[in-house]
Amino acid sequence: MSQQKIHPRTLKGFRDYLPEAMLPRERIMETARRVFRSYGFSPIDTPALEYLEILLGKGSAETDRQLYRFQDHGGRDVGLRFDLTVPLARFAAQHLGEIGTPFKRYQIATVWRGENTQRGRYREFMQCDFDTIGTTGVASDIETILVVNDLLSELRVGGFQIHINHRGILSGLIEKLGLAEKTVEVLRALDKLGKIGPEGVAEELSRTAGSTAAQNEKLLELSSLDGSHAEIMSELDTLVAGNEVGETGVSRLREILAGVGAALAQPAVDRVRVEPSIARGLDYYTGLVLETTLEDLPDIGSVCSGGRYDNLAELYTKEHLPGIGASLGLDRLLAAMETLNLIEPVRTPAEVFVPFFAATRLGDYLRLAAELRSAGLGVEVYPEPKKLGKQVQYADKRGF
Amino acid sequence: MSQQKIHPRTLKGFRDYLPEAMLPRERIMETARRVFRSYGFSPIDTPALEYLEILLGKGSAETDRQLYRFQDHGGRDVGLRFDLTVPLARFAAQHLGEIGTPFKRYQIATVWRGENTQRGRYREFMQCDFDTIGTTGVASDIETILVVNDLLSELRVGGFQIHINHRGILSGLIEKLGLAEKTVEVLRALDKLGKIGPEGVAEELSRTAGSTAAQNEKLLELSSLDGSHAEIMSELDTLVAGNEVGETGVSRLREILAGVGAALAQPAVDRVRVEPSIARGLDYYTGLVLETTLEDLPDIGSVCSGGRYDNLAELYTKEHLPGIGASLGLDRLLAAMETLNLIEPVRTPAEVFVPFFAATRLGDYLRLAAELRSAGLGVEVYPEPKKLGKQVQYADKRGF
Repeated sequence: MSQQKIHPRTLKGFRDYLPEAMLPRERIMETARRVFRSYGFSPIDTPALEYLEILLGKGSAETDRQLYRFQDHGGRDVGLRFDLTVPLARFAAQHLGEIGTPFKRYQIATVWRGENTQRGRYREFMQCDFDTIGTTGVASDIETILVVNDLLSELRVGGFQIHINHRGILSGLIEKLGLAEKTVEVLRALDKLGKIGPEGVAEELSRTAGSTAAQNEKLLELSSLDGSHAEIMSELDTLVAGNEVGETGVSRLREILAGVGAALAQPAVDRVRVEPSIARGLDYYTGLVLETTLEDLPDIGSVCSGGRYDNLAELYTKEHLPGIGASLGLDRLLAAMETLNLIEPVRTPAEVFVPFFAATRLGDYLRLAAELRSAGLGVEVYPEPKKLGKQVQYADKRGF
Repeated sequence: MSQQKIHPRTLKGFRDYLPEAMLPRERIMETARRVFRSYGFSPIDTPALEYLEILLGKGSAETDRQLYRFQDHGGRDVGLRFDLTVPLARFAAQHLGEIGTPFKRYQIATVWRGENTQRGRYREFMQCDFDTIGTTGVASDIETILVVNDLLSELRVGGFQIHINHRGILSGLIEKLGLAEKTVEVLRALDKLGKIGPEGVAEELSRTAGSTAAQNEKLLELSSLDGSHAEIMSELDTLVAGNEVGETGVSRLREILAGVGAALAQPAVDRVRVEPSIARGLDYYTGLVLETTLEDLPDIGSVCSGGRYDNLAELYTKEHLPGIGASLGLDRLLAAMETLNLIEPVRTPAEVFVPFFAATRLGDYLRLAAELRSAGLGVEVYPEPKKLGKQVQYADKRGF
């Protein structure tokens, strides 16, 4: 046909997943579902499109700017969700009477952000969240760590560490030092430790928070604590002594460590490490915070992060909904597994390839395949009696 | 807080899936993935957003009208996919060199249509498609039927029938009767058989296709064929005798039936029935067509349909890509399972509930739960040492 063809292409920042990328992606999602379910987390789903009013102003100025927004057929202002936390808050407020609390849910779903693609970011990606809402019980803090441990163990990504902290320790120390009104500045400066080093942080602290050298020293001490958990905890005791928020934080962290120690066997329990400098953002989290790094690829940052928040859905309901949750960075993890050569170059989910030799024997091939399938094997029958060389080439390309 | 709350709600035509709806939905998707994979179909994924040019004019005037379309941040005209067939065509054209043929893929993903919600339709729903492209081999026709059979069997929806036909038989008969130029009118009239009966169809045929009473009788004979497969096939032989398209269609249908008979045991093979009146649309399908109905709920129509097409991606590439595929109507099936009481009122994926009696024993509860989990059980530990009555109420509500 001489008809003009349409150029087949995806939008900038979007991508197709071919089988070799989709197979490990589905494996990660299946593992996540299995682990979440084994702790009694239930799946939910929410629409990709929400009223703009639900989404706007719920993330940052940046997520507002990145929002895919338009008017639908009824002239309503709508937007594509940019995360799964805002939809969860709306969902919880809307269905609270029906779902009851405590409520444990997971959601694995696509979100969209009009990111700057120059930084290698995609505009469509998968989020994989689990949360326990409506309880402040320490059991749910401990369980969140256990879920992360099971998840990373079952994903077989090599060694990993779960770094935990309690936001109360940092807040308590800042309060104790009389810098409570400069909390944002202090956190912002401490957050740059990795980039600009202790001297740089001290300089910024003095400049933006107006802190003294002695105050800076105390703040920086948090990041340099080292040794066994018992040693670190005892140093934290000293650092926050006399401040109620800080003391409560340290004591809660002790309970969490005890629970993790009771539930996990060695050496798993050693993967969980107290890291007093972790803050994870300026104001969302109020209790336990956690990050997870891969031993063989620490530079990519945390592949699973989360924490306890004080009130999930205050914008939508008067009900107070404390909770804790974490999110698996599915795409980051997949990229890491590629870098670490943990992904086999396979393009088929089937184990057995049945070549098609003679047209008259098709019935036999189909019967053979059916028998193997009922024994639990995946079987692909080549669909045409082509030359054997061609069929072998095909099987080879697919990774049989 | 006296702050004004935002009313938590979903858009018209959209819905949240609570655990009791999402659990069976995930079970259907998992079953579909397992069955597709067991035949060597690989997963792929494509973006929710495509260039408008890719989507417009690829469905019907109706899908064009229902398209969610807007301009993205870069001023590009974009739209949300309304099905998975157009994205597959674009995908196949774009990655043909990489994927090679034959190519077997499945995709389970959300699509959006600004439907009229008065008809009870949703604007966001899940499609579940599998296709084999780049081959005309009868093996892939047979396999498509086998996949549908395995799928419905494993979903445990009670008895079902797979109705098959070959479009060549209908085309051949129409051609033989000298009505080829009125094909659209003939198909449109025959399609109304269920609604207006044979007399109504005959009247419409004469009126719109200008056919004679004798021609109408032959056309209606197709729908009234009855008896064993051997009898029906022999009557079809007679009906299309002398017309090449029709004869080829009957012969292909015989091959398909032989293959299905070879691969399936009794009584499964009896589920597959030749139904010479099935056309499935006016011009997309060119070979085998199939529909699947539930024995206990025939009125809801086909829950899994598809067929062979001649050229998937002609709008995007010069490569000729014949193929065959089918689509599971996930939401329709779920609704049917609800009507048939096949869905348990369960809101948790875990089997075991561990109540939390004494705060001092939390370590024991966590250890017990971990042991049960390593034995393959899902376990939920109640997160707080509340009154036992409350915990039991919770467990009861969740369906433990």
